[in-house]
Amino acid sequence: MSGKEKILLAYSGGLDTSCILKWLLEKGYEVICFMADVGQEEDFVAAREKALRVGAKDVIIKDMKRTFVEKFVWPAIQMGLVYEDRYLLGTSLARPCISIGLMESAAEHSCSIISHGATGKGNDQIRFELSCYALDPKIKVIAPWRLPEFCKRFQGRKDLLDYAQKHGIPVSATPKAPWSMDANIMHISYESGILENPAKAAPEELYQMTQSVMKSSNTPIKVDITFKEGLPVSVLEHSSGKTLETPLEVLTFLNKIGGEHGVGRVDLVENRFLGLKSRGVYETPGATILHVAHKDMEVYCLDREIFRVKSFLALKMADYVYNGFWYSPEAEYVRTCLVGAQKNVSGKVTLEIFKGHVMAIARESTKTIYNQELASMDVHGTLSPYAATGFIEVNAMRLKEHYRVFGSANME
Amino acid sequence: MSGKEKILLAYSGGLDTSCILKWLLEKGYEVICFMADVGQEEDFVAAREKALRVGAKDVIIKDMKRTFVEKFVWPAIQMGLVYEDRYLLGTSLARPCISIGLMESAAEHSCSIISHGATGKGNDQIRFELSCYALDPKIKVIAPWRLPEFCKRFQGRKDLLDYAQKHGIPVSATPKAPWSMDANIMHISYESGILENPAKAAPEELYQMTQSVMKSSNTPIKVDITFKEGLPVSVLEHSSGKTLETPLEVLTFLNKIGGEHGVGRVDLVENRFLGLKSRGVYETPGATILHVAHKDMEVYCLDREIFRVKSFLALKMADYVYNGFWYSPEAEYVRTCLVGAQKNVSGKVTLEIFKGHVMAIARESTKTIYNQELASMDVHGTLSPYAATGFIEVNAMRLKEHYRVFGSANME
Amino acid sequence: MSGKEKILLAYSGGLDTSCILKWLLEKGYEVICFMADVGQEEDFVAAREKALRVGAKDVIIKDMKRTFVEKFVWPAIQMGLVYEDRYLLGTSLARPCISIGLMESAAEHSCSIISHGATGKGNDQIRFELSCYALDPKIKVIAPWRLPEFCKRFQGRKDLLDYAQKHGIPVSATPKAPWSMDANIMHISYESGILENPAKAAPEELYQMTQSVMKSSNTPIKVDITFKEGLPVSVLEHSSGKTLETPLEVLTFLNKIGGEHGVGRVDLVENRFLGLKSRGVYETPGATILHVAHKDMEVYCLDREIFRVKSFLALKMADYVYNGFWYSPEAEYVRTCLVGAQKNVSGKVTLEIFKGHVMAIARESTKTIYNQELASMDVHGTLSPYAATGFIEVNAMRLKEHYRVFGSANME
Amino acid sequence: MSGKEKILLAYSGGLDTSCILKWLLEKGYEVICFMADVGQEEDFVAAREKALRVGAKDVIIKDMKRTFVEKFVWPAIQMGLVYEDRYLLGTSLARPCISIGLMESAAEHSCSIISHGATGKGNDQIRFELSCYALDPKIKVIAPWRLPEFCKRFQGRKDLLDYAQKHGIPVSATPKAPWSMDANIMHISYESGILENPAKAAPEELYQMTQSVMKSSNTPIKVDITFKEGLPVSVLEHSSGKTLETPLEVLTFLNKIGGEHGVGRVDLVENRFLGLKSRGVYETPGATILHVAHKDMEVYCLDREIFRVKSFLALKMADYVYNGFWYSPEAEYVRTCLVGAQKNVSGKVTLEIFKGHVMAIARESTKTIYNQELASMDVHGTLSPYAATGFIEVNAMRLKEHYRVFGSANME
Repeated sequence: MSGKEKILLAYSGGLDTSCILKWLLEKGYEVICFMADVGQEEDFVAAREKALRVGAKDVIIKDMKRTFVEKFVWPAIQMGLVYEDRYLLGTSLARPCISIGLMESAAEHSCSIISHGATGKGNDQIRFELSCYALDPKIKVIAPWRLPEFCKRFQGRKDLLDYAQKHGIPVSATPKAPWSMDANIMHISYESGILENPAKAAPEELYQMTQSVMKSSNTPIKVDITFKEGLPVSVLEHSSGKTLETPLEVLTFLNKIGGEHGVGRVDLVENRFLGLKSRGVYETPGATILHVAHKDMEVYCLDREIFRVKSFLALKMADYVYNGFWYSPEAEYVRTCLVGAQKNVSGKVTLEIFKGHVMAIARESTKTIYNQELASMDVHGTLSPYAATGFIEVNAMRLKEHYRVFGSANME
Repeated sequence: MSGKEKILLAYSGGLDTSCILKWLLEKGYEVICFMADVGQEEDFVAAREKALRVGAKDVIIKDMKRTFVEKFVWPAIQMGLVYEDRYLLGTSLARPCISIGLMESAAEHSCSIISHGATGKGNDQIRFELSCYALDPKIKVIAPWRLPEFCKRFQGRKDLLDYAQKHGIPVSATPKAPWSMDANIMHISYESGILENPAKAAPEELYQMTQSVMKSSNTPIKVDITFKEGLPVSVLEHSSGKTLETPLEVLTFLNKIGGEHGVGRVDLVENRFLGLKSRGVYETPGATILHVAHKDMEVYCLDREIFRVKSFLALKMADYVYNGFWYSPEAEYVRTCLVGAQKNVSGKVTLEIFKGHVMAIARESTKTIYNQELASMDVHGTLSPYAATGFIEVNAMRLKEHYRVFGSANME
Repeated sequence: MSGKEKILLAYSGGLDTSCILKWLLEKGYEVICFMADVGQEEDFVAAREKALRVGAKDVIIKDMKRTFVEKFVWPAIQMGLVYEDRYLLGTSLARPCISIGLMESAAEHSCSIISHGATGKGNDQIRFELSCYALDPKIKVIAPWRLPEFCKRFQGRKDLLDYAQKHGIPVSATPKAPWSMDANIMHISYESGILENPAKAAPEELYQMTQSVMKSSNTPIKVDITFKEGLPVSVLEHSSGKTLETPLEVLTFLNKIGGEHGVGRVDLVENRFLGLKSRGVYETPGATILHVAHKDMEVYCLDREIFRVKSFLALKMADYVYNGFWYSPEAEYVRTCLVGAQKNVSGKVTLEIFKGHVMAIARESTKTIYNQELASMDVHGTLSPYAATGFIEVNAMRLKEHYRVFGSANME
Repeated sequence: MSGKEKILLAYSGGLDTSCILKWLLEKGYEVICFMADVGQEEDFVAAREKALRVGAKDVIIKDMKRTFVEKFVWPAIQMGLVYEDRYLLGTSLARPCISIGLMESAAEHSCSIISHGATGKGNDQIRFELSCYALDPKIKVIAPWRLPEFCKRFQGRKDLLDYAQKHGIPVSATPKAPWSMDANIMHISYESGILENPAKAAPEELYQMTQSVMKSSNTPIKVDITFKEGLPVSVLEHSSGKTLETPLEVLTFLNKIGGEHGVGRVDLVENRFLGLKSRGVYETPGATILHVAHKDMEVYCLDREIFRVKSFLALKMADYVYNGFWYSPEAEYVRTCLVGAQKNVSGKVTLEIFKGHVMAIARESTKTIYNQELASMDVHGTLSPYAATGFIEVNAMRLKEHYRVFGSANME
């Protein structure tokens, strides 16, 4: 029985975490590697083999796709989470999901320390560590990219390559793309490298989940998405009559058709939790479709005032999630409030999807006060037309009084 | 000299306001008709003739296109106004603009009363009247569609047609579309009639400003939009090298290319100020392009915390504008705050426009803290990588303490 | 069996509603009077007799004190409701409570119409009617003070007095106070008459629930108030050892000691829902004490971020309640959110009460992350002192970057 | 000429900073001491002598009282800043003020480093350092209480005393109070030591600026406070007719009368920026009086909707200031917005002050829409009483529709 301290390393199979694995072994730790399958395209078998060859004691590969979709992506759609108006939080949501896997595996294998390859200027280090600490404050974290010793030794990619060669760590023959990427079943994000210049458009070859709209299908597609209490419960494709129901199937199908139609690309500069701005390019085909549908259903079903309160809360929640506070008292609280607002968000939205564009074109629900008769301009209905006179007079009174004292509003 | 009271009637040339004109004349008023040219396609000459024939004392046609674009559309883009996440407020912005014209003409022609054909369940009556009262509280308003006498007499379209025939009011030979529309240089909105069923998609033939994406141009277009303090100051089209600078030219050009590429359609159900929900279909090609560009520029340039405060204020302002409070103390105040937030929103955004989709793909500004070196994952730069350790430790502390007392957050 | 329509009149026993009673009878209605006992000092027996003498078919007097305290006052304390920073909503809360009584009695006595004596410029007409419509939209309301016929007949107090004399309606011998008041077990509010001049202080003789601090007790009093999930569950008076537990007893006791110590007076100008400003003077002894205690408990127990979200929601809720939307989808929703935030607001606060001043001086709870060891400046504890260095460096980075681009912040 | 690096040390004269001074000298720095006179009671002459005796190269004592009152306290009153509902930010405001003095003196004396004695768990380290970095990002900071070497050497007060004795640093003969305090002309704050137990009331002998209400004056005092655009411009004491006008005189006078009447004590637990909760006891006599007056003036003068927006912004600003972001893009922005909201907050408030209680009892302004005639219940005035009927009908419509679909709101 070795007396070595046991570390669970979040392993990617790439150069960085392979070097970290070796370095931790050199430091005298016993290292188990952990890989979460959250839907990224990855040769898990090869990665396992590589880790074992470098010296990992064991490699855990955990299929978390269903957990990710059901416990993170679906609630994010239900809560309507968008960060800084455009980012659907694909990576931010994966981090706490992976953290569950990490912490469960750490407990199972009696690892008191976890380690990861996230850098010192990014959001992911924060998301991983806050999630892990929130799940078990006793866990210890080794973040090599924040250790002076490690940073000194590995000052650039070249140092990693040299180290890999020296220690017989296999290096991919294909040259590294001039950007980094993070993939899961919800999205792929791209950053760094040539993307660091926000004035330069991302190259077309970067995108992996979505077709270019130039090459995408020339046939629009229509789908019905059904929601129950704000959660997607099924998708029906009009032309084929195909219906899907489990979250994983729904998202996989929407990713496919969204991808074929070039849906869900976004290129932006965002504000990181650390306070710096960074450029990110994202493709999120299926979840973009779901988000458009959910928004349509929500405004259709929700009371006007509830919608406003709920929108404020969703902005707070998006910040919490982006900043790594998925597991926190505030996220737990605000999520309860947001889910509470969804109890009437049930019904069906019809979407047209074509050339990157997703448009709600029709919707149905029994949980809305929408009242065709009342809305009709041709029928007086239950609201007497004279009522508006008093309503306007009352609203005008404050403005008239303001004018009396201060004169006209200056809107120049 | 007649002793009759003088009314200024907001006249559209259509059946409703022509009947109202006649009815007001029957009531013994002297009526002057007012038409604001805010960019709608309209045969103003024919409308003038018609009004005079019905008995209008005079017809004022005021070209307000430039005022509308410069004083209403541009500020709305600058403030980032979107109502209930999707509606760019094309009609809501036109109403206070037209109200200025109305009130100025009323003053010039000594009309102490204004009248309009807006119905008693819509937003426009409120927007017109609140704007007019805010500009001059002494003005009187006659809203026939809210007068019991008028409503009793005209219970449906048939009564109007009968009245028109009886009084020799010419009625358009083309059958009325099964919806109503409101157009200006920013957008066209459609509602009522067959659109009142939100479960039925709007027919393709409804759209007038935008091509169907099925038929729209097969060549993507790229433009650079330059902003100064949040206001668009020029547009450059890449392929032609064409540059436009005045607001009116910029919007006209963007409407053209947006229209050709099917940009800016939206079909939704919204919450009216009166509290009912109504279905609206909008097409807003040019302003949609500007809005996408402005959002990209804004997040690129603004401080993270200012962006959050500003976003909250923009939601308030969108409600004010939608509800008819463009001229109000709160709108004046919040506008000042929003404009104050734009002082650094200056630079250039490159957009790709194709098949209804508008995407920011690059941006430049000297007014941003974006720092390529700092953002780079490959360089340690001015933020020491070790700093994040303390940052995370501090943020984790509250979560750890929460765990100590309450256990893990429940995010199921 | 009479074929008359039956009205339930919210009756106060005063001149206005007695005249309204008579007027409704003259109009041919059968009128039943309704009085809710929400703790106001009132000679209900005399009022009943008077109503019957004027011609009421029946008089219902409903003891709603317990309902009012348990279902309205306690939740308001729990939610921390304060309108425009100072008003604890004593009248606003009573209106929906009375409305329940009204609607239940209307149903029991088959009255399809209710009537009240609230004037056309106040908040109470709105609160009563919105509550009643929300409870049963089929109810009809007759608000005589908004009927042209009634207003024309009764243009001032003199017309009411003449009418009373003519119809043998007894008028109180004591001259009317030069202000109006509304009382219940939570508070008394005063407005109108001489109070309409906000530049003139309210006279000392106005106050009925509280002693002047000049004459109030010279012995400070200490109490412990215990909360469970944000609701007061008991009060212990230190010197006597007296303990009270039911909401009605707790509030009665706190009103007594608050009144003896001059607690809870406030004189202000507030914004009414109709948009005008009005001056109100309030005395709310017991609820002021509870509010101070609850605030102290809340900040002690709540997570920092939850406290911020919750505070935003409480401001919304206070507006809803003030404006008459106690029964509304938004109030139901926000209340659920606010109550959700209180699950850890449990513990005990010690207050010192003296000469109008209420001060929390100590508090205890097991539901707080307050950590004496961690807070101690003398012990390094679980947060390493070095962590703050990284935390500050990260926070400083955004400021430094801002300086790099824009120079120093201008705080002159 | 020495080649030593020059440090400017924020010096208090106490044990901690005297030891730090000596320690820095031992480390080989040349140290200049800096003391800001922000109104604390301090023997500056003795402190200077002591610092020189320990080895300071120079001692700078800067009178910043006027700067503090005019540039920090007055704006805080104008903006209505209150942290977590109760704390008026007396210490938080002093830190950026002192930082200006520090940075100016550092520049004058060519010190590239500053140092301070703030501990690693408090807010003040953050406020000092963020302020200094925002004023000049090149400044270096040595915070000994966050240096492992220093913390190891000085593990408790005893180590400091030993070190002082060894190095001939004079130690005050009076025993240290069992709490720490921070004083300036706005307030005194107390924390630590015996106060760390929030369940134990603070001892009466702790308070220095205010009389106990038991012993405070038995004569109520009345003052008029005049505001111009939200800033206090003069105070008139009724009985003496005394008037004060400069900010420094006004605050000094209000501190005196507030202190005599026991005004402005508060005992609370607050959330620190680092995420821990700490207990603080504050006495803020004059600023409490100003705050009560300002609130009254503000609600009297401000438009209802502006007041709501402004209240939201003031909460943000209070957090910024508490957390050390006085000099930041967001504080600069939000301050501009808040000051913009004050342009009509002008007029006079009459206050009654007695036994710890401050109550606005009357107010006057020409900048308010308050309209005695309109508010009057006895006059119909410019708002027709019939208008409210339509207003209520419209507001009820949404509730009725909600009932139609969902039934009654559940407010149990």
